[in-house]
Amino acid sequence: MDSDRQHCDTSNEYVHLQNPHLKSMTSDFLYHFNLGTATHDLPAMFGDVKFVVVGGSATRMGKFARYIHQELGLPESEEPQDLADTDRYGMFKAGPVLSVSHGMGMPSMSIMLNELLKLLYHARCSNVVMFRMGTSGGLGLEPGTVVISKAAVDSCFRPRYTQIVLGQEISRPAELDQGLVDELLHVAAQEEGLTAVAGNTMCANGFYEEQGRLDGAFCDYTEQDKLQYLQKGRDAGVRNIEMESLCFAALCRNAGVKAGVVCVTLVDRLRGDQVTTPHDTLKEWELRPQKLLAKFIRSRLGMK
Amino acid sequence: MDSDRQHCDTSNEYVHLQNPHLKSMTSDFLYHFNLGTATHDLPAMFGDVKFVVVGGSATRMGKFARYIHQELGLPESEEPQDLADTDRYGMFKAGPVLSVSHGMGMPSMSIMLNELLKLLYHARCSNVVMFRMGTSGGLGLEPGTVVISKAAVDSCFRPRYTQIVLGQEISRPAELDQGLVDELLHVAAQEEGLTAVAGNTMCANGFYEEQGRLDGAFCDYTEQDKLQYLQKGRDAGVRNIEMESLCFAALCRNAGVKAGVVCVTLVDRLRGDQVTTPHDTLKEWELRPQKLLAKFIRSRLGMK
Repeated sequence: MDSDRQHCDTSNEYVHLQNPHLKSMTSDFLYHFNLGTATHDLPAMFGDVKFVVVGGSATRMGKFARYIHQELGLPESEEPQDLADTDRYGMFKAGPVLSVSHGMGMPSMSIMLNELLKLLYHARCSNVVMFRMGTSGGLGLEPGTVVISKAAVDSCFRPRYTQIVLGQEISRPAELDQGLVDELLHVAAQEEGLTAVAGNTMCANGFYEEQGRLDGAFCDYTEQDKLQYLQKGRDAGVRNIEMESLCFAALCRNAGVKAGVVCVTLVDRLRGDQVTTPHDTLKEWELRPQKLLAKFIRSRLGMK
Repeated sequence: MDSDRQHCDTSNEYVHLQNPHLKSMTSDFLYHFNLGTATHDLPAMFGDVKFVVVGGSATRMGKFARYIHQELGLPESEEPQDLADTDRYGMFKAGPVLSVSHGMGMPSMSIMLNELLKLLYHARCSNVVMFRMGTSGGLGLEPGTVVISKAAVDSCFRPRYTQIVLGQEISRPAELDQGLVDELLHVAAQEEGLTAVAGNTMCANGFYEEQGRLDGAFCDYTEQDKLQYLQKGRDAGVRNIEMESLCFAALCRNAGVKAGVVCVTLVDRLRGDQVTTPHDTLKEWELRPQKLLAKFIRSRLGMK
């Protein structure tokens, strides 16, 4: 890593990596993407990236990239291809928009995000905005509603991402950029048939017990215990529950990158656990965060 | 769920689900597999399963199923297909062997395992043995060595899987079946060119900071701090580090299912962080747990 890139650590425009060890590495191999500084010209491949959108599955992120490619009117010859030569994550580029999958859960997000932030750093990207989009369970919302996260919170409703590093707990703040929240709400208000609300997003380390579901393999609490817990979350400002936002919000913030989280709700957890909505309706709902972010990106690029 | 299947909760042979709520559900939809009791005849599809092998990527688990299919001499017409109609996980069946992907990290494992244990329960499977196979970082071992886990331990080297349920910490033991460890060591000893050791497996919630790596996007400790931590792990019996075993060991144990963990080490973390071994060598190493488990299954089925 060149010492002349020390500006990356001090300017607001660039990705701030907080790791002095990187400077002494002669090359950096991003193992889970199978991309590296010794084997790839990362500035040439990724230097023009201004928007990064991450989501769970590689298939969906490939589709999103092709949708953005169309929305931005990019040439057919530049149809997005998977740039990560691995079966861990998918990575697709449509002009200034990078679309990357992160799998399910914070550890999977954490691996991807560490390597993605290093990639943006090595590629000397500047003024990047990052989004996570996905699906979630809602709290007291009509299913199909889109939640724009004000903060990601843990299972005790605190906006802190806690990691165990060398056997010690460390904790990082997970509030999200409020300017972006307002901008997303503004764009959403112009989208016909879309209901969007701002609220806190609870991030859990599981789908069943950790989200108070009654229908997992294990459950030793009552429906009343569950509802009390979820209502406590709702009272603390939680509007939806998913499994990645806390890590995403905290690590982006730690790298000085503005970040937003946009998830559609598939079920109202105050009314049930299982997702029973017909497949076609779910598919339409899943597209809502995609449409919102496409509109946001077009708006930022001065397209109507 | 039929009440005549209450024997599942009391017999050692069946999967023990510990959730009284399941009994009152008229049907159960396993959302992340897109399989359900109302839409699929699970006993007919899966009732003969005796071995379940889980691993990270869907591609690899598909290849493993085809390899087992060959090893067991099954008919060409029964070539394993992906039975989970979703892009979340892959699920393939080769005779009595079910091969399922779990993604990366414990939350992703937890979702899959909750639904897999329910699937085995609904399908009335009996006498099932489960394995996780994968890759890992070693501690003081020649890379390429296979570690057979005696217990999964957390980042403080305790054999406990800690979950936050309704805002409260609960903790479940994560020791593994010692009979299986011995049986796996015995099978491994017969495999030429394979070095296998038994030891504890540390399970972390990240790949970089959480495993004491110096090459992530963030790092605020020294190489000496890192080595002290890893040496402390080695002294506590840890021989390798990965990201799923703790959840796997604890939930299988909680369901009364015998479970084993078999991972190959790709790097000696006491000597470095980055995986720099040539691709072809890594590919050969990755096959080692597969070969060991194929041999184990053949041996259990009375094949030589």
